[in-house]
Amino acid sequence: MINEKMLSLGNKRSVIREIFEYGNRRRSEIGADKVYDFSLGNPSIPAPEKVKEILLSLIENTEPTKLHGYTSAQGDLGVRTAIAENINERFDAGATPNLLYMTCGAAASLTISLNALLNEGDEVIVLAPFFPEYTVFIEKAGGKAVVVKCREEDFQIDFEALENAINSKTKAIIVNSPNNPCGVVLNEETISKLAELLNEKQKELGTDIFVIADEPYRELVYGDVVVPYIPNYYDNTLVCYSYSKSLSLPGERIGYIFVSPKVQNCVDVYAAVCGAGRALGFVCAPSLLQYLVAKCQGLTGDIEAYKQNRDILYNALVEYGYTVAKPDGAFYLFVKSPEEDANAFCEKAKSEEILIVPGDDFGFKGYVRISYCVALDTIKNSLDGFKRLIEQYR
Amino acid sequence: MINEKMLSLGNKRSVIREIFEYGNRRRSEIGADKVYDFSLGNPSIPAPEKVKEILLSLIENTEPTKLHGYTSAQGDLGVRTAIAENINERFDAGATPNLLYMTCGAAASLTISLNALLNEGDEVIVLAPFFPEYTVFIEKAGGKAVVVKCREEDFQIDFEALENAINSKTKAIIVNSPNNPCGVVLNEETISKLAELLNEKQKELGTDIFVIADEPYRELVYGDVVVPYIPNYYDNTLVCYSYSKSLSLPGERIGYIFVSPKVQNCVDVYAAVCGAGRALGFVCAPSLLQYLVAKCQGLTGDIEAYKQNRDILYNALVEYGYTVAKPDGAFYLFVKSPEEDANAFCEKAKSEEILIVPGDDFGFKGYVRISYCVALDTIKNSLDGFKRLIEQYR
Repeated sequence: MINEKMLSLGNKRSVIREIFEYGNRRRSEIGADKVYDFSLGNPSIPAPEKVKEILLSLIENTEPTKLHGYTSAQGDLGVRTAIAENINERFDAGATPNLLYMTCGAAASLTISLNALLNEGDEVIVLAPFFPEYTVFIEKAGGKAVVVKCREEDFQIDFEALENAINSKTKAIIVNSPNNPCGVVLNEETISKLAELLNEKQKELGTDIFVIADEPYRELVYGDVVVPYIPNYYDNTLVCYSYSKSLSLPGERIGYIFVSPKVQNCVDVYAAVCGAGRALGFVCAPSLLQYLVAKCQGLTGDIEAYKQNRDILYNALVEYGYTVAKPDGAFYLFVKSPEEDANAFCEKAKSEEILIVPGDDFGFKGYVRISYCVALDTIKNSLDGFKRLIEQYR
Repeated sequence: MINEKMLSLGNKRSVIREIFEYGNRRRSEIGADKVYDFSLGNPSIPAPEKVKEILLSLIENTEPTKLHGYTSAQGDLGVRTAIAENINERFDAGATPNLLYMTCGAAASLTISLNALLNEGDEVIVLAPFFPEYTVFIEKAGGKAVVVKCREEDFQIDFEALENAINSKTKAIIVNSPNNPCGVVLNEETISKLAELLNEKQKELGTDIFVIADEPYRELVYGDVVVPYIPNYYDNTLVCYSYSKSLSLPGERIGYIFVSPKVQNCVDVYAAVCGAGRALGFVCAPSLLQYLVAKCQGLTGDIEAYKQNRDILYNALVEYGYTVAKPDGAFYLFVKSPEEDANAFCEKAKSEEILIVPGDDFGFKGYVRISYCVALDTIKNSLDGFKRLIEQYR
């Protein structure tokens, strides 16, 4: 009688969540310091001290009816202006406030964009490995997710497979770089080739194909890696951004959609974004958080802590003989399972109190995701276990 | 090519918003104090001082990874426990944390509830006059809005009309009391009769018919008026609540859904709510705001200020000869237009610099909505204009 799809979705336990809850049981049984839990992608470094200062100052010094009042549905004009300026400083991408739409975080950015673009039966390409909620969001927006696997050797796009997947129903492709779960950054060559292929296909098919750039991890890159800004390579691009990871504010739900001015009929696409936000029940993004992020442009958390975690764990795993995807960004390692069945490997890892997630849920079998957004000690103390684990396969 | 419905929704200018923007032009032309703008339902009293204190204390004293971290999708357990306790203290309604789902405000509460309950083609009854976004939310969830007009003499439910509107496709009825736009509270007799009729119809049709109680104005009632708590009268009830109006936090987007334990298969309905929240992209309600409202249970803004506004305006309008719906709650007066065409009346009101909204948009022609959540001086200074206005019709 009620909506069966929503019911089954509400009842479906996520594998990640189950592993995390297994961890909770083990923590209470043997002590938190004995459990090496790499299951969740929850920022472990605190929000920058400046976030606290700005919040306190906003609350102390702003008229409450202004601070807590409705903003326009697209977001406060001053906030959107500050963000547009930052985008243009960094990427010279022609951002304007009237092409920016403030959202309740990355998930909302995605659902609003998908609902704005899709008609019933449209196809959306997702590149595996991918964040599993993509398929939920696409289906709820009336679309069909079409999975294209990345090349296993470097997790860049497999262009032959991608070309074969594009047809007249293809409305969009979601590009998530730095990637959850594999930590890989799509390089400039890949993004240029992607733009070339999509332009050809748009011409050939006479359709619009949008890139939805899901970029919550943009700021989390290590060393001198550059994450190409897709609107500067491909016209029909919507950028979905969130401050959850860059400012360690995942619970606060604040981000934006940027419709590139180069999008075909960008004014209409932006209007459809506004319409979708309205129809889904997003009246405006939380006002206090809007004013906060406007004052945090250019600020990030202490990313060096993640880099240190990555370096120690990556170097050790490679030394022990694991095969690991090139981990340039986000806070994940994607590691080839030493046996074909990654689920079985994850089970075995529990014997070392190591909690990791099979790649199956991310559309990529035979791999495991290790979230290294954890305390440094967790990394260090887990190393012997990882070593013993792979030795079992010799 | 993109979604035409979302495009047209994004492009559709709201009448209320247009009147408000006309007001902005007039304010800059003749001065803000000369324009009597009753168009928006934006709380005019500030959030209570205690909100500021609690926010400052939370930010000063909470570990940032906890304060800004993900909560569970349903909301933090401690927050839901505090709210359940408050509901039970006031209404003895059997609330438990596992039947409460924290949302980004009333609109989100409604879209999540509708998407959880509706299947394609289901009908949802709305009682006119009604908040115009209801039809947007219902249609986006795949449903069809069926409008039943309230009785003009007292704006209580017209049960004959309601009975005629119920059929095997009726999945839910949205009940909004105190009501936007008419300020009327549905009395106990009405709610009892509603429960009786729906129970009969459920039996007769062999279906479930849900009441979605949209209650952002519950706390805004004046004098000793009692707003019946619908779960205590009718089993299949979901309460959609928001703190926007009671705490003057409309921009912050924080509220909840309470699935009554008496709902048929309440565990499934709650699971479907969780599924719908997930599919629409609501990861969790903003964490800082969750912790805030948990500590604000029982607190409201200075409602006396609204009561004063209401009393002055209501008494004056009645004295001048206007016909006004009994204004027991919210911050709206619903006034019969002295001419048949309420749009024409609203246009004439502009000659007195009075900005009010025709009832047409709320599904009820021949009336106008006056939002009295404004400064007391605006009320006082507008009175002569209202008097001259009705005198034109003598």
